[in-house]
Amino acid sequence: MNMERLKRVTGRMREAGLGQILVTATTSLYYLTGYWVEPHERMIALWLTDEGKAALFGNEIFGLASTEELPFVSHKDGEDPVAALAAAVKPGLLGIDKFWYSKFLIGLMGHRPDVVPVHGSMPVDENRQFKDHRERAAMRHASAMNDQVMAAAIAAVGEGVRENELAALVNREYLARGADCEGTQLVCFGPNGADPHHSGDGTVLKSGDSVIFDIFTPISRYWCDMTRTVFYKTVSDRQRQVYELVKRANEAAEAAVRPGVPLARLDAIAREIITDGGFGPFFTHRLGHGCGIDCHEPPDVSGASEAVCRPGMVFSIEPGIYLPGEFGVRIEDLVMVTEDGCEVLNKFPKDLMVVG
Amino acid sequence: MNMERLKRVTGRMREAGLGQILVTATTSLYYLTGYWVEPHERMIALWLTDEGKAALFGNEIFGLASTEELPFVSHKDGEDPVAALAAAVKPGLLGIDKFWYSKFLIGLMGHRPDVVPVHGSMPVDENRQFKDHRERAAMRHASAMNDQVMAAAIAAVGEGVRENELAALVNREYLARGADCEGTQLVCFGPNGADPHHSGDGTVLKSGDSVIFDIFTPISRYWCDMTRTVFYKTVSDRQRQVYELVKRANEAAEAAVRPGVPLARLDAIAREIITDGGFGPFFTHRLGHGCGIDCHEPPDVSGASEAVCRPGMVFSIEPGIYLPGEFGVRIEDLVMVTEDGCEVLNKFPKDLMVVG
Repeated sequence: MNMERLKRVTGRMREAGLGQILVTATTSLYYLTGYWVEPHERMIALWLTDEGKAALFGNEIFGLASTEELPFVSHKDGEDPVAALAAAVKPGLLGIDKFWYSKFLIGLMGHRPDVVPVHGSMPVDENRQFKDHRERAAMRHASAMNDQVMAAAIAAVGEGVRENELAALVNREYLARGADCEGTQLVCFGPNGADPHHSGDGTVLKSGDSVIFDIFTPISRYWCDMTRTVFYKTVSDRQRQVYELVKRANEAAEAAVRPGVPLARLDAIAREIITDGGFGPFFTHRLGHGCGIDCHEPPDVSGASEAVCRPGMVFSIEPGIYLPGEFGVRIEDLVMVTEDGCEVLNKFPKDLMVVG
Repeated sequence: MNMERLKRVTGRMREAGLGQILVTATTSLYYLTGYWVEPHERMIALWLTDEGKAALFGNEIFGLASTEELPFVSHKDGEDPVAALAAAVKPGLLGIDKFWYSKFLIGLMGHRPDVVPVHGSMPVDENRQFKDHRERAAMRHASAMNDQVMAAAIAAVGEGVRENELAALVNREYLARGADCEGTQLVCFGPNGADPHHSGDGTVLKSGDSVIFDIFTPISRYWCDMTRTVFYKTVSDRQRQVYELVKRANEAAEAAVRPGVPLARLDAIAREIITDGGFGPFFTHRLGHGCGIDCHEPPDVSGASEAVCRPGMVFSIEPGIYLPGEFGVRIEDLVMVTEDGCEVLNKFPKDLMVVG
């Protein structure tokens, strides 16, 4: 257990009136215990009380052992995965980690009608937003690697290349720089870029295509995440107009980041620029998301966000314009809130590039 | 909507006394609607009643549109993701898909205390177990590609190679054969193989290592999944003894597959062989898992499984022995239950191989 982090989490539980929570996300368990467990369909849960009592429940296949400070209570495949956990928790409110599978919660409620499940990720997630010294170094390193990988990816844009070939190249470049694993990389040519979630398929590059690289991977457990959009061989006036608008929105939002600024304000700054440029309806998602041990984590960077910039926060600034049937443009950096402003973790240039 | 599948699902709902369910898994939504949506932290849910009424609720970012047979009710980032869904569902029992995030279920329960959440994946999952003609062809094709990729991976075992380099090679070979994406490939050298879930890291191959390849990917939405274990340069008597035992367990279980045989019996057949050989405590997981649009799906192939072999089922047979600090051996095929027996989808040989 990381006792310093545990102490901050239980402090937040007491402030929130949450006497007990279940921590179940792989990343939150790692943050508190140092164990990295990917349970897939199996069960793992760290039960924490606001007095700092802790016990870990999980499938024996995870190969964990009890320690003096953290007992591990195991079950086997085929056994009821929540029986021991249900026997341990106290009556009343029980905070539940947001991504815990409903099958486990429904099972627990079946055993314990005296337990009232409520949202319970906040005590851990709130603390995870503020990166400590070691975490800040890890985030800087991952984004520095991402700048290098982006350069390699853009250099590979050329005649006859397919989206999924570029995605595979990005993964290889990541691995060569210490990435923990390969992942889905969003590489989108031309009209495919109008879908913000399109992932690289067999589409072949054509002259005049916009090429979106939204690339992200964990390196030593901390994520990088950056997007650049370039154009292949030629760029139309309309593409240039959209590109410059998105770039202005990105830069204006980044320039506004400093302690005390509401994250909703950042979203508004970017959105106003795109709306004034006439493309408001085509900026169809929030401005960004927190990033750390998870690629997407608090704080939310949207018009509905109630969070305010504070030192140690790391999040993305990624405005985009998506024109169905035509093309898309997105420009994204990770930024870190400092004591008096903002450090943009990605140094890769944002000037309009026509390649090939 | 696939009306044939919808009809089977609602029939199963009526038999189970489930008047309404929420289908939320990417793969189950695909099975019923043909839409492939990866919602990440966002919300999507197909509400189905036992009379065949259906409506889809989800974030507008998914880009779905209402059709005559399936209305789509959207929300935006920052809005309450379950408000519209909560307004639509009926009082009483509501079947919940097993992997739906607790945050959504807790939100729904907050709106609707008159709704009683219960396990609700069964009507879809039970039907998905029995592959139709088109699905059987897709499973055969994916496993045929896997045989080729395994051959390429074993051919690359050699001096100085690292686990993660072989994992990357496996992904490249998959992509070249039409895989939908890259994924985590389990490549384990020597003592790393004693952890059934170890995934390829920077470990360098050494003479005398066992090399486990547990490789799997979706190809046109249907998964392959196979494991082979080979030995580098030399094999010890103990490694040979363990290998032959695992191979016998694998082959005996596969030989027993036919309609009417309980899946728990298959687990017992393999486990008895390994136990009689003196390694029972080191076969630490179930024999296998169903496989289809998900890599892991029903039926469960364990001692606790209540399922019985029926035509169209596809599942893995993957006994293993894990000796901490020493090495591991696992041998896995996908098998398909036929009208009168079993078709082993993987043709890659299982005779002991020493390579390099």
